[in-house]
Amino acid sequence: MEEEAERLHRAVGQRLRTLRRTEPGLSQEKLAARAGLHRTYVGKVERGEAATTVDSIAALCGAMGTTLSVFFESFSRPIKLRGPRRSRS
Amino acid sequence: MEEEAERLHRAVGQRLRTLRRTEPGLSQEKLAARAGLHRTYVGKVERGEAATTVDSIAALCGAMGTTLSVFFESFSRPIKLRGPRRSRS
Repeated sequence: MEEEAERLHRAVGQRLRTLRRTEPGLSQEKLAARAGLHRTYVGKVERGEAATTVDSIAALCGAMGTTLSVFFESFSRPIKLRGPRRSRS
Repeated sequence: MEEEAERLHRAVGQRLRTLRRTEPGLSQEKLAARAGLHRTYVGKVERGEAATTVDSIAALCGAMGTTLSVFFESFSRPIKLRGPRRSRS
């Protein structure tokens, strides 16, 4: 399951990098400043080294002029991060 | 900006509730158990009272047989959670 989480973090990071690079000259540093996030955090996220909050991704999307729907549009693979831990009821 | 974050949390919560209720009989408790999350956390998220991680939303999506792309498909409004804090360079 840990592996699945790492795969998700890498996919989020790659998506962020791809979207950031659609704006010429938009460095991690500039993006972080616009989004009100720390420069090193953006680097970590892009390398898939950090779990992210929906708030952070939304802030990054806002800073890139895009939206959560666009960010996640390619995340169409079912993911089992935890469980299955079915309840008995 | 805080208001914008709260709006996002409420939108995430409403989306989660809508998707959960598409499966008859899927309670917050059952969903939490399947996703490996705490029951009270799922309630908080649905009420827009908690910030969420992408990992948690992915786990919830997996437990509902859906995906992040479906979860966020209606999140198409640009959001400014923080900033603008443009860098000088």
